[in-house]
Amino acid sequence: MDTPVSRIAHAYPDRVEVRGRDLAGDLMGRVGFSEYFHLLLTGREPTEDECFFLDLVLVSIAEHGLMPSNVAARMTLAADPGSLHGAVAAGVLGAGPVVLGTAEECATLLAEGGEPADVVRRYREAGAKVPGFGHPVHRPVDPRAERILELADERGVSGPHVARARALHAELGLTMNVSLPIAAVLLDLGFPRVAVKAVPILARTASLLAHLAEEGEAPIGFDLARAAEDAVRYEPDARA
Amino acid sequence: MDTPVSRIAHAYPDRVEVRGRDLAGDLMGRVGFSEYFHLLLTGREPTEDECFFLDLVLVSIAEHGLMPSNVAARMTLAADPGSLHGAVAAGVLGAGPVVLGTAEECATLLAEGGEPADVVRRYREAGAKVPGFGHPVHRPVDPRAERILELADERGVSGPHVARARALHAELGLTMNVSLPIAAVLLDLGFPRVAVKAVPILARTASLLAHLAEEGEAPIGFDLARAAEDAVRYEPDARA
Amino acid sequence: MDTPVSRIAHAYPDRVEVRGRDLAGDLMGRVGFSEYFHLLLTGREPTEDECFFLDLVLVSIAEHGLMPSNVAARMTLAADPGSLHGAVAAGVLGAGPVVLGTAEECATLLAEGGEPADVVRRYREAGAKVPGFGHPVHRPVDPRAERILELADERGVSGPHVARARALHAELGLTMNVSLPIAAVLLDLGFPRVAVKAVPILARTASLLAHLAEEGEAPIGFDLARAAEDAVRYEPDARA
Amino acid sequence: MDTPVSRIAHAYPDRVEVRGRDLAGDLMGRVGFSEYFHLLLTGREPTEDECFFLDLVLVSIAEHGLMPSNVAARMTLAADPGSLHGAVAAGVLGAGPVVLGTAEECATLLAEGGEPADVVRRYREAGAKVPGFGHPVHRPVDPRAERILELADERGVSGPHVARARALHAELGLTMNVSLPIAAVLLDLGFPRVAVKAVPILARTASLLAHLAEEGEAPIGFDLARAAEDAVRYEPDARA
Repeated sequence: MDTPVSRIAHAYPDRVEVRGRDLAGDLMGRVGFSEYFHLLLTGREPTEDECFFLDLVLVSIAEHGLMPSNVAARMTLAADPGSLHGAVAAGVLGAGPVVLGTAEECATLLAEGGEPADVVRRYREAGAKVPGFGHPVHRPVDPRAERILELADERGVSGPHVARARALHAELGLTMNVSLPIAAVLLDLGFPRVAVKAVPILARTASLLAHLAEEGEAPIGFDLARAAEDAVRYEPDARA
Repeated sequence: MDTPVSRIAHAYPDRVEVRGRDLAGDLMGRVGFSEYFHLLLTGREPTEDECFFLDLVLVSIAEHGLMPSNVAARMTLAADPGSLHGAVAAGVLGAGPVVLGTAEECATLLAEGGEPADVVRRYREAGAKVPGFGHPVHRPVDPRAERILELADERGVSGPHVARARALHAELGLTMNVSLPIAAVLLDLGFPRVAVKAVPILARTASLLAHLAEEGEAPIGFDLARAAEDAVRYEPDARA
Repeated sequence: MDTPVSRIAHAYPDRVEVRGRDLAGDLMGRVGFSEYFHLLLTGREPTEDECFFLDLVLVSIAEHGLMPSNVAARMTLAADPGSLHGAVAAGVLGAGPVVLGTAEECATLLAEGGEPADVVRRYREAGAKVPGFGHPVHRPVDPRAERILELADERGVSGPHVARARALHAELGLTMNVSLPIAAVLLDLGFPRVAVKAVPILARTASLLAHLAEEGEAPIGFDLARAAEDAVRYEPDARA
Repeated sequence: MDTPVSRIAHAYPDRVEVRGRDLAGDLMGRVGFSEYFHLLLTGREPTEDECFFLDLVLVSIAEHGLMPSNVAARMTLAADPGSLHGAVAAGVLGAGPVVLGTAEECATLLAEGGEPADVVRRYREAGAKVPGFGHPVHRPVDPRAERILELADERGVSGPHVARARALHAELGLTMNVSLPIAAVLLDLGFPRVAVKAVPILARTASLLAHLAEEGEAPIGFDLARAAEDAVRYEPDARA
């Protein structure tokens, strides 16, 4: 077996090296957290546009009120008030394909070829929803999606993936939700595919920490649990 | 029961309001992710110093090579390659008091009164380690700790908590690790106590995502698990 | 450094040895799952009484309707329907001290000395709740607590810890909840302290799996999240 | 929206009803934990054969030495020694498709039709491994798989799924691992498909609790992490 290799970082007694750079002597105080995240993830410091849009998409997707994962995390902190990280983990587990993971399906949709009309017909025939379209709250437009596309145009980074997102939208007519332009802009800027999954997870961690800080100060977790429980009727089945 | 209240955010059909601001119309494209995290957590946009030092401490604590939580997360992704968020959650669960949580104990240490010499004697008599001192790799100094203190002095934000960290260091003589100046600077800048716990969790999530992106491309998780397993001897006990 | 040792199990090409026994050749088909759990945890096969009461306490604590951890787990599965284990993990994270962890505090309470009247006064003066007493639903008695004590008496295993539980109850007059007799009986039977924490976690995992199986067939996770969200009022604070 | 329904359990002030039965008055002291798990999961108490084989498969899959998920859980407890449930959750997250989840793929394999020779050829042509075959340690046979099949024959429960497992084995010639007979026997006994996923998760939770109890008494988590870290070479890439 070859020795396993990692290219990210190593700690020596007198220095920490990250992606070939000196953490304390070079990076700390010079790069912000978003730039550092880009360096960690890709091995390269971002250009100005890459950094601007990384910040933009992180900000766009982080917070959306009492989403299911925030609710689950707050209930978890209520039951275990000393473990902030445990409650964050519970919330991160809700970053699954139905909610946050759609950005990844959007990336697949944007990367594959074919005429928009054909793509849409194929989904319809399969009885499936086209990823990136429809939203339980926002209509007729998701304001975050609009704003990302606007800024991508303004700063001249809109490329073939943004164009494809718009073509699919023209074809479908449904609300384009925030996940599609996130995927489109990241792909047009050349981010690796994994960034499309990683960005929403980092973003929602910031939101979870804010909700859990509030939960620590003014707990409502058990109220949330009671409201959920009260909405359900117990009905033993015939088998019993 | 009073209606439970949350002050963070709410989604309306045509807008998302976050801490009283319009997410798409105001925040997106104007604030970076670190500033936004500050706004989410505290309800207030940061001053320039607050933003600089928030970035600084996030960058200082995010990455340190193959830490136990990165190893645990990589093993988890190896076993469940489709769940990036599941592996992140497993890693976040390792952000406990022995590793990342020391920043919180440091905050307590810095906030309580008493002469440094008395404080140190009290810990010694209890046979306990003074939080924020000693490091398994770094000696005689933790370069990250040095750098944070240097920048705090340069930018004139060092206050009573930084002074107390130094006084404890003078008394003890051990390596001051990165957790103590993180706590000291955040407290001197007036951050809420919860930030001292929240910052390391957000920072390490960025590191976890980088390690998991690498794991996805060039898997070593099972190699790590095998090396760990091979280091242990099975020895059935007498009871059996 | 000494070689780390584990006494639990080892896999060889032709056999799996568990606590010094041959898994396939001896244990499988001979011991039930509860007995096996006892062997794994303690290194010893249980006596008939140990097995009876291990089963009893596991059954008593496993299920209690839509508890917060079941609600959180169902929301998590709704967001990530392919990850049964991810949703179980989210639910297990809610097995914290406020909910399931009281059994451990009960064990501490029962193990420490002092007159019941003094113990109760000490808690009252500290403004703290005595662990093992009070329940949000059950009154005047928790039927599960009654049943455990009844069976402990019937089978002659009630010892000093059960007696102390009753003395505290006589002193306090509040509902004795299920956690106190669980701790008392396990301690009177000589189980290690860790069993008092481990038993509720294993028990609730069974409940989580049942709720998640139901969630997979007839999803209500997003309904639960919506009911929780609807119970909260968004109220931006003055700072914003 | 219809009122969401759950058929599992409800707590009333004076009783807990589970699947239409009185928990304290009927189930506690009468049914063991395995039977109760069957009742929770399926709504029905098991027959003697169902209970025997449920115990058998739980025992067969629970423990296998220092598996990756046990290693990850022990590292997590080392970093956060107060959170037994947090460490269990980290370990459960490793119950993914590559390791424990194969039982589910085995169920799919056994349930779909087609000649064994054709099925095997199809997998080979796709360059995929047939689920349920091959093992990193056991060869030429997995003793647990053999024992399950032997007991299924002895007690007359082997049906079409067991027969199909054997036919695939005859066709392939590779080691049949424990996941395939677990799936086969559960399906031949009429268990619901979700049981094939749920059983390994409950089983491994018992193992995790045993490893974490040992970790609490004689910690090796950081030794495991160091051995893993030492097995890796840091190699900054050309991009840096």
